[in-house]
Parts: sequence; C-alpha cells; structure tokens
Amino acid sequence: MTMAQRGTSDPKRDTYTPETLLAVAVEVFIERGYDGTSMEHLSRAAGISKSSIYHHVRGKEELLERAVGRALDGLFGILEEPRALQGRAVERLEYVVHRTADVLMAELPYVTLLLRVRGNTHTERWALERRREFDQRMAELLDAAVADGDLRADVDIRLATRLLFGMINSIVEWYRPPSGGPAVSDQVSDTVVRLAFDGLRT
Amino acid sequence: MTMAQRGTSDPKRDTYTPETLLAVAVEVFIERGYDGTSMEHLSRAAGISKSSIYHHVRGKEELLERAVGRALDGLFGILEEPRALQGRAVERLEYVVHRTADVLMAELPYVTLLLRVRGNTHTERWALERRREFDQRMAELLDAAVADGDLRADVDIRLATRLLFGMINSIVEWYRPPSGGPAVSDQVSDTVVRLAFDGLRT
Repeated sequence: MTMAQRGTSDPKRDTYTPETLLAVAVEVFIERGYDGTSMEHLSRAAGISKSSIYHHVRGKEELLERAVGRALDGLFGILEEPRALQGRAVERLEYVVHRTADVLMAELPYVTLLLRVRGNTHTERWALERRREFDQRMAELLDAAVADGDLRADVDIRLATRLLFGMINSIVEWYRPPSGGPAVSDQVSDTVVRLAFDGLRT
Repeated sequence: MTMAQRGTSDPKRDTYTPETLLAVAVEVFIERGYDGTSMEHLSRAAGISKSSIYHHVRGKEELLERAVGRALDGLFGILEEPRALQGRAVERLEYVVHRTADVLMAELPYVTLLLRVRGNTHTERWALERRREFDQRMAELLDAAVADGDLRADVDIRLATRLLFGMINSIVEWYRPPSGGPAVSDQVSDTVVRLAFDGLRT
C-alpha cells in the first residue's frame, strides 16, 4: 500500500486493518528509526489507541516483522519466477536485476525499511540473514554467468555484486512514483540493466 | 584523519586540536545523527569539557560546517585536477568518477556525513546546495560526452547520473580500509569505472 492509497482510506478509526496499520507503522519506522519508535508514536500516527493496536499485533516488533517480511517476500518471489529459473545464467541475472528494481519501486517503503535494518533485535537479525541469503543467490547467478563466459572475468565478482546492489538500492533515496501514476517505472529498471550490463560507453 | 590515526593520538586532554576534535565530532554525528547530537554528547565522546570545545569552535554547527566542508573540498578539488580539465569529455568523466570514488574512501567519515545531511539548518542547506552544484558539473560532463558520441544516447542521462552516483555513494555503506593499509582501494575505484562505462557483459 502506497502513501497515496492510505490517504484515500476511510478516516473512521474502527475501519483500521492490519494492512493500513502496517503502512502507517512503516512510515513512522522510516522517519524515527525502529529503535526510536514507541507504541505511543505508532498510536499517535495511526490515530488509534495503543489497545486497538494490540488488538491487531503483539507489539512493534511484529509490525517490523510483517513489514520487512513483505519486502523479502517480494524479493525472494522474483527468484521463483519462470524467467529467473530458465535459460542462460546471464539472461536470468538480467531478469532478476530488472525485477529487483521493479520490486524496490513497487514496495518502496517496505524495501526502504529493510535496507535500514540494523540488527539490534531478533527480527532485525533475521531480516539481515535473509538479505544475505538473497545476496548469496545473486552471487551464485553471477558466478554461473562468468563460468558461461558471458560476464567479464577481469572484475572481482563479489565487489561488482556489491556495487550493482548499491546502485539498485540507491533508488529508494530519490524515486517517488508519479502522483496517480504507476508505482513502478520501467525506464528506471531498464536503465539499471543497461548501465550494469552494457555500460555507458558507445 | 581516519579513526585509526585518531587512535594513535596523544590521550592527554590538553593536546586536543581542532583536527582531532573534528574527527570525534564526525563519528558522533554519524552515530547519533546531527540533530540528535548535543554539545554534551560531543564533550563526553571527546573526553573534554564543553568549555574546552568552545575554545576551538563556536558550536556544533561549526563542526558540521568544517566536516562537510572537508568532504566538499575533496570532491570539488577533483574538478580542478589537470586530467579533469583536459582531453575528451568521456576521458575527463572517467577520471572524475574514479577520483570521486577515491575521495569517498580517503575521506570516508566526512563524505558519509555529507551524504546524510538533511537540510534542517543553514549549514546543511549550504551543503545540499554544494552537492547539487557538484552533480550539475557531472551532468554537464556527461552531456558533453554524449554530444561527442562517446556515451550512448539511448539512456536518460540525468537518470544514469543518479544511478552512477548511487553506486559510488553506496561504497560508504560497506567499505572499510584494511587495518594499517592504505585508505583508498584502487580496485574499488577501477571496478566502479569498468562497471559504469563498459558494463559487466563480455
């Protein structure tokens, strides 16, 4: 759910769903940091009482778990898509890079939060572990593409993976979907793929 | 001054210089955020009294100004280097990208702080304005290289610039110089240039 969608939800307090509560919580976590957010902050931002929040979730850590879980489900889901599973490694890799940028834009606040996780709680450590798993799957794909002779062997592939994901993840810093327009910009994902695989030079 | 260098400085309080105080302040600003840092925090981290700090600077905003100024001087200095001024635009651009990554590593905490500036104070707004000036100079160089026919014209150059700087700036998230080794890794800067200009594909 984007912020724009939340703006159109019914303002009546008793219509709050776990989904709308989650969208509000993610905004507050991003704004104040997870550590700096109290149930009081969440209650004020959502405009509902703390006991109403406890009706939906056990506490703020469950909200964090659901929020980063949503981002992680989006990212790991890519790896199960047919084009991520079939064909030459370099083509699967290009597809996954494109779709990773798509998911980042489609789930912008959730991925933003995932990228800011620090590791102070059980849920944060779990999220970091899952991020490492995703990076590992990507590194395997890169290795396979190098082995096929489709990616240059004169760069350190771990370093290239870091820089590639640095580029993709930086999208959260500036990308905002056009008001009323689609959440995902194909132009952004396409440019990421062109830059990463073919470079800027003619 | 790197953290390693600071570790070797004389622990006697009265040997504090504006330089060592700045290094400590930058660490605290990064850790707590500039807004969240008080003179009390700086005093405790530096192990000197607040009045001793006021002997060196007017307040925390002057420390911020000096810190981001150091990062900005490093970045703008690149644009005055001979190889940034002479030759084909694409070669000047490659040089500037390489050197930007170098300066980021050489001045790691200062650039990290610069990248986190939010714009709540006069100094922060000045720093953001200077960052935009730097981005503008880079965009001009990219435009010139496209006009020369050396960069592909089928990508939006502003978008490519954002992604390129997203990649470079992401280095602050993970790069740590080897203990006792050089602050700058040529391998990292070289890989940035290869990825950005030639891409990963063979």
